[in-house]
Amino acid sequence: MSYKQLSKEELLKVKQDAQKQYEEYKAMGLKLDMSRGKPNTEQLDISMEMIDTLSRSHAMVGEEGIDCRNYGVLDGIIEAKRLLSAMIECPVDNIIIYGNSSLNIMYDTVARSMTHGVMGSTPWAKLDKVKFLCPVPGYDRHFAITEFFGIEMINVPMNPDGPDMDMVEKLVSEDAAIKGIWCVPKYSNPTGISYSDEVVRRFARLKPAAEDFRIYWDNAYGIHHLYDDDQDYLLEILEECAKAGNPDMVYKFCSTSKVTFPGSGIAAISASKANLDFIRKQLSIQTIGHDKLNQLRHARFFKDFDGMVNHMKKHAAILRPKFKIVLDTLEKELGGLEIARWTNPKGGYFISLDTLDGCAKRVVALCKDAGVIMTGAGATYPYGKDPHDSNIRIAPTYPSNEELQQACNVLAVCVKLASAEKLLEEA
Amino acid sequence: MSYKQLSKEELLKVKQDAQKQYEEYKAMGLKLDMSRGKPNTEQLDISMEMIDTLSRSHAMVGEEGIDCRNYGVLDGIIEAKRLLSAMIECPVDNIIIYGNSSLNIMYDTVARSMTHGVMGSTPWAKLDKVKFLCPVPGYDRHFAITEFFGIEMINVPMNPDGPDMDMVEKLVSEDAAIKGIWCVPKYSNPTGISYSDEVVRRFARLKPAAEDFRIYWDNAYGIHHLYDDDQDYLLEILEECAKAGNPDMVYKFCSTSKVTFPGSGIAAISASKANLDFIRKQLSIQTIGHDKLNQLRHARFFKDFDGMVNHMKKHAAILRPKFKIVLDTLEKELGGLEIARWTNPKGGYFISLDTLDGCAKRVVALCKDAGVIMTGAGATYPYGKDPHDSNIRIAPTYPSNEELQQACNVLAVCVKLASAEKLLEEA
Repeated sequence: MSYKQLSKEELLKVKQDAQKQYEEYKAMGLKLDMSRGKPNTEQLDISMEMIDTLSRSHAMVGEEGIDCRNYGVLDGIIEAKRLLSAMIECPVDNIIIYGNSSLNIMYDTVARSMTHGVMGSTPWAKLDKVKFLCPVPGYDRHFAITEFFGIEMINVPMNPDGPDMDMVEKLVSEDAAIKGIWCVPKYSNPTGISYSDEVVRRFARLKPAAEDFRIYWDNAYGIHHLYDDDQDYLLEILEECAKAGNPDMVYKFCSTSKVTFPGSGIAAISASKANLDFIRKQLSIQTIGHDKLNQLRHARFFKDFDGMVNHMKKHAAILRPKFKIVLDTLEKELGGLEIARWTNPKGGYFISLDTLDGCAKRVVALCKDAGVIMTGAGATYPYGKDPHDSNIRIAPTYPSNEELQQACNVLAVCVKLASAEKLLEEA
Repeated sequence: MSYKQLSKEELLKVKQDAQKQYEEYKAMGLKLDMSRGKPNTEQLDISMEMIDTLSRSHAMVGEEGIDCRNYGVLDGIIEAKRLLSAMIECPVDNIIIYGNSSLNIMYDTVARSMTHGVMGSTPWAKLDKVKFLCPVPGYDRHFAITEFFGIEMINVPMNPDGPDMDMVEKLVSEDAAIKGIWCVPKYSNPTGISYSDEVVRRFARLKPAAEDFRIYWDNAYGIHHLYDDDQDYLLEILEECAKAGNPDMVYKFCSTSKVTFPGSGIAAISASKANLDFIRKQLSIQTIGHDKLNQLRHARFFKDFDGMVNHMKKHAAILRPKFKIVLDTLEKELGGLEIARWTNPKGGYFISLDTLDGCAKRVVALCKDAGVIMTGAGATYPYGKDPHDSNIRIAPTYPSNEELQQACNVLAVCVKLASAEKLLEEA
């Protein structure tokens, strides 16, 4: 029965029961971690063959006759461009292959805008104020980049089909200090939702007051489906922007960090030719080129995009049971109590849990005391401040299924306990 | 006989002979390149075993129990730190391992100073004027970084034992806008000279007007000797700076680009703890970590620094004949003519050739027309402007020995021709 309909006495009983259960878990001396959006060992093992695609006995010369062991090729070998442009859904000419981290590309993109502006605009470091829109809850490492550069962040609520576009349209068209918006358009971090066609179209048709406004489209989970037969599809934003007369308005980012190896993958940016030409000027100063052997390794391992799609099915097979454990446990323990809501994503790496207002920090602290590490409450908001103190990001991928089940049990009882405490305070 | 002692008639004869020889070379339709400081294929082949040090059958867990395939470890695995700290001669705690490019670390270091200052100083982007000292001739890609950020570059002459330290001391102590100096202290690019102990000590004892002045010590050729028995040794600058009460005044950079594979090596910065702590703050925003598998690959291949030193002997054996071809040809063709001087380095990747004033551009143009690509004249100076138009960088490593011999023959005749032209103009 919904906690909200309980009398004070009933709530006290609920609290006592939860407290008792909590103490039992605590006594178990657990050491579990549901905080990290990282692949588990079984997932890493499915890419081990990639390492063997390069060895002493293999030719290191790429399709275009380039010895991939030597200097040169600033923006990526053609094999890698072909593979990642298919992954990010853009023409092969609209991509630059970088090193191992799309986060680093995003950082570089903001850093370059600070010192050199965007395609001829005033360097942001010379402006009094620069602002970014931040759909919330969102990805803490996006927010960390803009915070690091002193960029003011404005929360935009996330709806089930994407950011609140009324608000985005209004703010972007009125305020020339707004230079960007952070987006994880597919299987969003942390809510797992994907942007609807209408939302993508409204993005493409934005009329920003700032000529150097860009959409930072972090396609982190573009091919990270959980199910074969129930997948989200997104309109392709680069093409939509071009159609809408805004060809230069978007940067897309992707990497193979959660396809092959985190830290040893390859990453890319996709954008209009004008954007990429501007970026290449900087890149030619910054480096002689990225790791072409690792590009070759990826290209030879997957052969083509179909190979990558098939590979992702192996990841999905490992991850599906984990998402099921979390969702089943939340439903079993918290269903109908009206003290929590959660998402049921079709892909990505997270499940987003919303507690009653004012309970998230308490839940995370209770979990921690019982040996279960959760992502810090507030982390999914700019400046680490969740105005409702209600959002908790659940990362089910890394723990074993057994550990995950235990961690979810603990989480559920912590939600019950914190909720009962809260409702009693208010009673 | 010295060209300077020739009569006008004799010079005309010299010019005609050179012209005739030049036309013969030109008619050969050569296609040679002495512009690129990159390893040749034979050099790349000696590192092929490294690729096999990681395969499906190897454990991917490092010494500290870290699965190198997954996220984590911001500043490098201990194995890589140990190897590169030995290479760069610093304690293992005074190093951060980056990705594949030391140039990229230097770029990031300047970029960070622009937006965030140096250990608490005012961000350079907020200053009216920032200047760097540039020992000349020097490395064009250093100068390109400072030029890209609008930093004013001041030429400092190079002596046979390092930069003109009287000038460096004076400028650095008087002008708080001077924030750095670019150095390639060992087997310098392009002159091949190494800094004397006295020069290193004077560097360490600098009294800069700017608290955020740093020495950018690019140890690009620290272990890149040509000879087993005749090597340059440098005083270790980090320790000298600490002794002199300037512990934070230097950043050292290195990479394995010319040890294993250019583009697929690993790179590092070494500095004081205070500097590295400041850098790590940025790094934690910029990336989740660099490619640890490639770090592991390097560590396992070399086992220890001795392994790396032995490996460098193989490079030296390949490069010695190439340097010999250039030096022998220059001596044979130009010796005693007093129209050119050149260096005879004990390591590194370049030989520096000085023509008569006002001849370098002409020589490079003549070479080009005869099918021999040289590094652009002026490239070794900030803004591409050699005030004497006399310096030419010779990069002997990449061509085959046969090609190199031909290219040197062409170069020598071009020097003769341009010199005769010049002297006739002035006669």
